[in-house]
Amino acid sequence: MNFHVLTLFPDMIKQGIDTSITGRALSKGLISLNTIDIRDFSENKHNRVDDYPYGGGAGMVMAAGPVYRAYQSVVSKITEEKQAKNRAVNAPRVIYLTPQGGVFSQPLAEELAKEEDVVFLCGHYEGIDERVLEMIVTDYVSIGDYVLTGGELPAMVMIDAVARLVPGVLNNNASAEFESFQDNLLEYPQYTRPEVFMEKKVPDVLLSGHHAKIDKWRREQSILRTAKVRPDLLKKAVLTKKEQEFLNSVKDIAKEQGI
Amino acid sequence: MNFHVLTLFPDMIKQGIDTSITGRALSKGLISLNTIDIRDFSENKHNRVDDYPYGGGAGMVMAAGPVYRAYQSVVSKITEEKQAKNRAVNAPRVIYLTPQGGVFSQPLAEELAKEEDVVFLCGHYEGIDERVLEMIVTDYVSIGDYVLTGGELPAMVMIDAVARLVPGVLNNNASAEFESFQDNLLEYPQYTRPEVFMEKKVPDVLLSGHHAKIDKWRREQSILRTAKVRPDLLKKAVLTKKEQEFLNSVKDIAKEQGI
Repeated sequence: MNFHVLTLFPDMIKQGIDTSITGRALSKGLISLNTIDIRDFSENKHNRVDDYPYGGGAGMVMAAGPVYRAYQSVVSKITEEKQAKNRAVNAPRVIYLTPQGGVFSQPLAEELAKEEDVVFLCGHYEGIDERVLEMIVTDYVSIGDYVLTGGELPAMVMIDAVARLVPGVLNNNASAEFESFQDNLLEYPQYTRPEVFMEKKVPDVLLSGHHAKIDKWRREQSILRTAKVRPDLLKKAVLTKKEQEFLNSVKDIAKEQGI
Repeated sequence: MNFHVLTLFPDMIKQGIDTSITGRALSKGLISLNTIDIRDFSENKHNRVDDYPYGGGAGMVMAAGPVYRAYQSVVSKITEEKQAKNRAVNAPRVIYLTPQGGVFSQPLAEELAKEEDVVFLCGHYEGIDERVLEMIVTDYVSIGDYVLTGGELPAMVMIDAVARLVPGVLNNNASAEFESFQDNLLEYPQYTRPEVFMEKKVPDVLLSGHHAKIDKWRREQSILRTAKVRPDLLKKAVLTKKEQEFLNSVKDIAKEQGI
């Protein structure tokens, strides 16, 4: 899978992605990263890519021209590579990282992991000229309801979330499947050696070797944690009748104790 | 404001934060960044920090000891610096980046921007031993409903969102205030030169010089965009009676046209 990033800060993207699990995936050739410096496509003698907004207001706006030409260079590259392999050429998904987008979530990560090429467009300043966005962007995506200084960190977050779903990237394929959000329950608490850490002991059940009991305990811990921290997720979770009864009984106890 | 990050990948954090606006804030001394390599606090001769989970299951768990000692080193550093200035010492906020947390949002960024020291704890593998989390963590925070390979990118996202609220970090103080989410409306589209780009013209109103009309147009564009992309936010927005009428009329037209 090939990630292309249109950015003013290519080094930041390269260094961030070339670390840990995504770094290993890069060196194994399971994913590739192509960063394009939008500034290289400025036709201004000072390599400027921003200008004042029409209609006034604070801040600067990234001009349409450099963004459009940077995008065209990526499309040419993808086209050439596909043609060299005698393959059909489709326009790639182009994701603009912006608070003015739908919120990123695991299902979109899974959808993107099936693409061969994905282009990320990182804005800065007060945003990018609307006209070039209308021309090239296929998806407007926000990683959450907070304001950041640019699109680079959100692009890295999306690349990380998507890359780990590419087959072979995680050592243990089971890992990706049984994780958070897959069943709308948060993960259960984990413990490792030593058995006693600063007077705190690992829960007995985990030392019992009784797998059915361990599974039941972990599932209950997931349900409790989700009920406490993310009741919004719990509404979408599928619980067995027994699990629902367990949850109700805990809620009753909590109510009695005025929690 | 001082950011402390407990991590297995200190270079990734350093390089990411030392870029663009946060990089400038670092060099101006408006913020500081202290990365602590958890691996330095391993007592294992191979510097291992992870081990198998009690009770079985895929993946490895980060052990309590190295995390706890890394945390203690930060607390000692903060304490010494405060004592040197004859100032009261309080335990710092410790944020664990985890899908098992409440979702990060702009109000939390604003709250954290008032702190003097904030500690971020970045997990890897299948998480961190629950016991040390219970001992040191004050806030469990998720940046969104997607799964990442580690806590580093979320920590960088939070540092970016918080740092830009620290006075002086953004060139234009007005910028931070009038942005997305502050009033639960998305931002209006922006345009800059040239006036015509590939046959697409800047909206006439922005060239009119009529500020009241420009403000009205922008506000309406924000309302329309929020209604289309993030109806959930619009419910919380405060609209004037006229704006509500405008929104209703647009909705009626959309309904008539079957959009």
